Amino acid sequence: MRRITYGAAVSLDGFLAGADGSIDWLHFSKDVQQVIADYWKNVDTLLWGRKTYDFSVARKSPTSAKKPVKAKSSKRKESTMRNYVFSRTLKVLEDPSVELVTSDAVEFIRALQQRPGKEICLMSGGALAQSLLAANLVDEIRLNIHPILLGSGIPTFRDPGHRIKLSLFECRQLEGGCVLASYKVLHAK
Amino acid sequence: MRRITYGAAVSLDGFLAGADGSIDWLHFSKDVQQVIADYWKNVDTLLWGRKTYDFSVARKSPTSAKKPVKAKSSKRKESTMRNYVFSRTLKVLEDPSVELVTSDAVEFIRALQQRPGKEICLMSGGALAQSLLAANLVDEIRLNIHPILLGSGIPTFRDPGHRIKLSLFECRQLEGGCVLASYKVLHAK
Repeated sequence: MRRITYGAAVSLDGFLAGADGSIDWLHFSKDVQQVIADYWKNVDTLLWGRKTYDFSVARKSPTSAKKPVKAKSSKRKESTMRNYVFSRTLKVLEDPSVELVTSDAVEFIRALQQRPGKEICLMSGGALAQSLLAANLVDEIRLNIHPILLGSGIPTFRDPGHRIKLSLFECRQLEGGCVLASYKVLHAK
Repeated sequence: MRRITYGAAVSLDGFLAGADGSIDWLHFSKDVQQVIADYWKNVDTLLWGRKTYDFSVARKSPTSAKKPVKAKSSKRKESTMRNYVFSRTLKVLEDPSVELVTSDAVEFIRALQQRPGKEICLMSGGALAQSLLAANLVDEIRLNIHPILLGSGIPTFRDPGHRIKLSLFECRQLEGGCVLASYKVLHAK
């Protein structure tokens, strides 16, 4: 079964972005580039919450990893990153490289996880992550904790309705005083 | 000027305790005991928010570090840990070893910081920390980040009204998959 990871750069007080959507506090170092490059070698599918997708399209920040991605072609074959955006309100997306999912996100992703493929990465600003954590579909959480308190903003974690135990498997300091902390989700049996 | 540190054991989603005040998820290891012992050598004053104090008195957990503390006597002289509880509603405290402060907490602590003495540790469940962070009185933040998502509870950080930049000076893994992350607060000039 394909692994689903929720990865995010966060402030120490647990925000993905400031109240105004600001991400100017994000620190992009060689360390971070390497971490992302190593991780994305194993990923072929990105899951986007609608708000995160809107935000990424609107911003199109060249330094932001949060935009729909096409995988680089290998020597042997063209390999394409699949992007899914989950929304109950959108009817159509302009970008043909992105697939809109308007049905139940949890059921869709549960089925997606059963299909053959590489790892799945969740690029969500909270609501989709909350649904998938509640449904015990997230296998790993990887945070890049930045040395700042934003005070308010878009929360990394919303209440999934039950406690979720984790197991730390990686902890190290990155450039700029960031802390990389990676966890396996200990699914209740 | 005496250093003021906000130290706390927190969940990965940023709570000091569950919604019902639960702290059964805290992991007390030899690592943690050593960290606390090393730090408390340099501390002679504890600041308590009223709710945290009430909670600690009610619970009187033998494993909780969060209760009023008397310093051990040294060979040369009796040295006593000073405990201050900040409240605008309480009139009197039963424990004579604890001093009740009903005046403005920020002004009181600003004056306290100027007086001779060792370091000051803030044992607050949010509201007092928020006031002191807003007033730029906190010099260090030390978190013991536990591998769990609680979903809801008592937040470690409330909005101080402005961004606060930090500088990481310590990051290491503790027993039980905890992450010790210590920061200096970069006071705006």
